[in-house]
Amino acid sequence: MKEVRRLQGLVKKGIEDLDLKRQPQTLYEPVSYTLQLGGKRLRPVLVLLTAEMTGGRAEDALAPALGVELFHNFTLLHDDIMDAAPLRRGKLTVYQQYNTDTAILAGDVMMVRAQQLLMQVDDAILRPVLELFNQSAIEVCEGQQFDLNFETSVHVSISDYLEMIRLKTAVLLGTSMAIGALASGREPTPARSFGDVGEKLGMAFQLQDDILDSFGNPQKIGKQAGGDIIQNKKTYLLLKAMELATPAVQKELEKWLGPEEYKAEEKVKAVKDLFEQTGAYDAAVRLRDNYYQEAIEALHKLDVRPEPKSVFLRLAQSLLNREH
Amino acid sequence: MKEVRRLQGLVKKGIEDLDLKRQPQTLYEPVSYTLQLGGKRLRPVLVLLTAEMTGGRAEDALAPALGVELFHNFTLLHDDIMDAAPLRRGKLTVYQQYNTDTAILAGDVMMVRAQQLLMQVDDAILRPVLELFNQSAIEVCEGQQFDLNFETSVHVSISDYLEMIRLKTAVLLGTSMAIGALASGREPTPARSFGDVGEKLGMAFQLQDDILDSFGNPQKIGKQAGGDIIQNKKTYLLLKAMELATPAVQKELEKWLGPEEYKAEEKVKAVKDLFEQTGAYDAAVRLRDNYYQEAIEALHKLDVRPEPKSVFLRLAQSLLNREH
Repeated sequence: MKEVRRLQGLVKKGIEDLDLKRQPQTLYEPVSYTLQLGGKRLRPVLVLLTAEMTGGRAEDALAPALGVELFHNFTLLHDDIMDAAPLRRGKLTVYQQYNTDTAILAGDVMMVRAQQLLMQVDDAILRPVLELFNQSAIEVCEGQQFDLNFETSVHVSISDYLEMIRLKTAVLLGTSMAIGALASGREPTPARSFGDVGEKLGMAFQLQDDILDSFGNPQKIGKQAGGDIIQNKKTYLLLKAMELATPAVQKELEKWLGPEEYKAEEKVKAVKDLFEQTGAYDAAVRLRDNYYQEAIEALHKLDVRPEPKSVFLRLAQSLLNREH
Repeated sequence: MKEVRRLQGLVKKGIEDLDLKRQPQTLYEPVSYTLQLGGKRLRPVLVLLTAEMTGGRAEDALAPALGVELFHNFTLLHDDIMDAAPLRRGKLTVYQQYNTDTAILAGDVMMVRAQQLLMQVDDAILRPVLELFNQSAIEVCEGQQFDLNFETSVHVSISDYLEMIRLKTAVLLGTSMAIGALASGREPTPARSFGDVGEKLGMAFQLQDDILDSFGNPQKIGKQAGGDIIQNKKTYLLLKAMELATPAVQKELEKWLGPEEYKAEEKVKAVKDLFEQTGAYDAAVRLRDNYYQEAIEALHKLDVRPEPKSVFLRLAQSLLNREH
C-alpha cells in the first residue's frame, strides 16, 4: 500500500535521524541494531495515520510516533530475554547477538529516549500525551507479567488470556491512535474513542499473531515455526482446543503437552491438527474477525477525514490477511 | 539528625501510600520488597531539602521526590543483575530473591511509575522537570554501560573513571536538587546551580562509597566486604594505586589481580594494604574532600533559606563521615 509505505518511510527517516552514534558505543549500537531490524512500524504508522484522520499532518506527529516505536522495541528487547527467544524478524535477538546485560541496559535507555520523543509535542497536549502513554506502558508491563505467570499456572481461563493480550498488546495500539488524535492538535473527537478503535484492532492483531505462530510460514514470520506449540504456550488456540475437545481428544492433547520429549516437528504437526479438529482454529479466526468488525464499526462512528480513513481501513484489513 | 529523619519519614510515608498492592502480585510484590529495603533515601531527601532551601514546602515536592527514588531503585534492580550482586542492604537482591525475569520487569514498571510521579507537578514546571530528569536518566544508563565496559577494558584512565561515576551517580544527585528547586515554585536561583552543588556532592559521595567498599565494616555496609577488590573492579583506589606504585609494588598489585585464585579474605587484606602503602587511600580521601568543598562553596554562592541550608550542610557532612 503506497500510502502506508509513505508513512513507514517517514518513520524510517525519523529513526535514521535519531542521534544514536553516541558514546558508549556498546550501549547505542544494540539500539541501532534493533531499530534497524525494521518490522511493520505498525504503532508509529497508527499515530501518524490518526493524526491525518483527525485533520493534522503526519509530520507534526512524528516525534511521539517514534517515541511509541522506541518504547515498543524496548519491550521486545526485554521480552526476548524472558522468553529466551533466539530470533526476531529473522535476525538474532539483541541478548543473543550481544548479551543479556546489554539487552537490559539498551532497553532501559530506549525507554528513556521514548519519553524524550513523546515530550516533543506542544505544551497544551504534553500532559495528556504522557499520561496516556505512561498508563499504557504500565499495562504493557502488567500484561507481560501475566504472560509469564501463565507459563506456570495450572488453570488459565480464556478471559484471563484475552485480558493478558489486551494489556500486553492491544492497549498500546489504542494509545498510538489516541496520541495521534491528540497530536493533530484539532481533536474533533475525543482521543479516547480512537483508543477504543486501536484496542479492538490490537486484539484482532494479536489473535492473528497467535494464528500465524502456529499456522504461518516460518520463512515469512521470521521466527521459529510453531514456537508457541513447542513451549506449550497457553494461547487462545490451545485454551479453546482444551475447552472444545472431547475427553478422548483432550487426553491426546494432554499427551503432547506432557513431560515426554517429542520431536519438535512431529509435535507441532500433531497439535496443529488437533487445533483444527476441535474447531479451535475456526473459533480463533471468528474471534479475530469479531474484534476487527468492532474496531471498524467504532471508527465509522467517528468524524474523520475520508482519505486517511480509507488508508486505515485497508491497513486494518491487511493486518488480518497478513502472512507475517 | 532530626530534620533529615523528618524528611526521610515523609518519603517513607509517601512510599507506603503508593498503590502497590496491585495485580499481578508477581510484578508488584518485588517492587514493594525493594522499596522496603529502605536505605538513606538520599535522592528524595535532596529534592525535599532543596525545595525548602528555595522557599517551598517539602510536602509540595514529595511526588517528584518519590519519582526520583523509584527511578534510583529501578537502576539498582537492573544493576544488581548485571553485577551479579547477591546482597543489597543486607537482604537478597531482587533477582536472587525472585528471579532475573522478575527483576527486569519489576524494574521496568518502576521506571514508568517514576515518570508518573515526576509528572505530579504544576503545568508550569512539567516540561523542565521531565527534561532534567530524562537527561539524567539517559546519563545514568550511559554511566552503567561505561562501568560494564571497564570490566573488560585493559586501560581505564582516572578521568574515564571519574566521568563514569559522574554519569552513573553524581548527575542524579544534581538533578534531585535541581528538581527540588523547580518544585518549590519560587526558583530564586536557577535550578542548574543546585544541580552543580548536587553533582559535586555526588562525586564525593561515590568516592566515599568506593572507600567504604574496601575499608568499611561489612556488617554496617550491608554487603560483601571488599567486593570491588575481589572483582578487580577498576575503582579510583585501584587506578590511583597503579599510578602511584613503584615498579615492584605495581608487580605485586598485578599478581593479586592476575588469574590465580586467592582466598577472598587474603586478597582483600593484601590489596587494602597496597592501597594504603601507595598513598591511593589518602588520595581518594583528598579527592573526596575536594569535591565536598566545591559543593559547599557552590552552595554558599546561592541565596537560600538558612534553616534548611544548615540541615543540608550537616547532611552533606554526614555523607562523608558515614560508615554505610
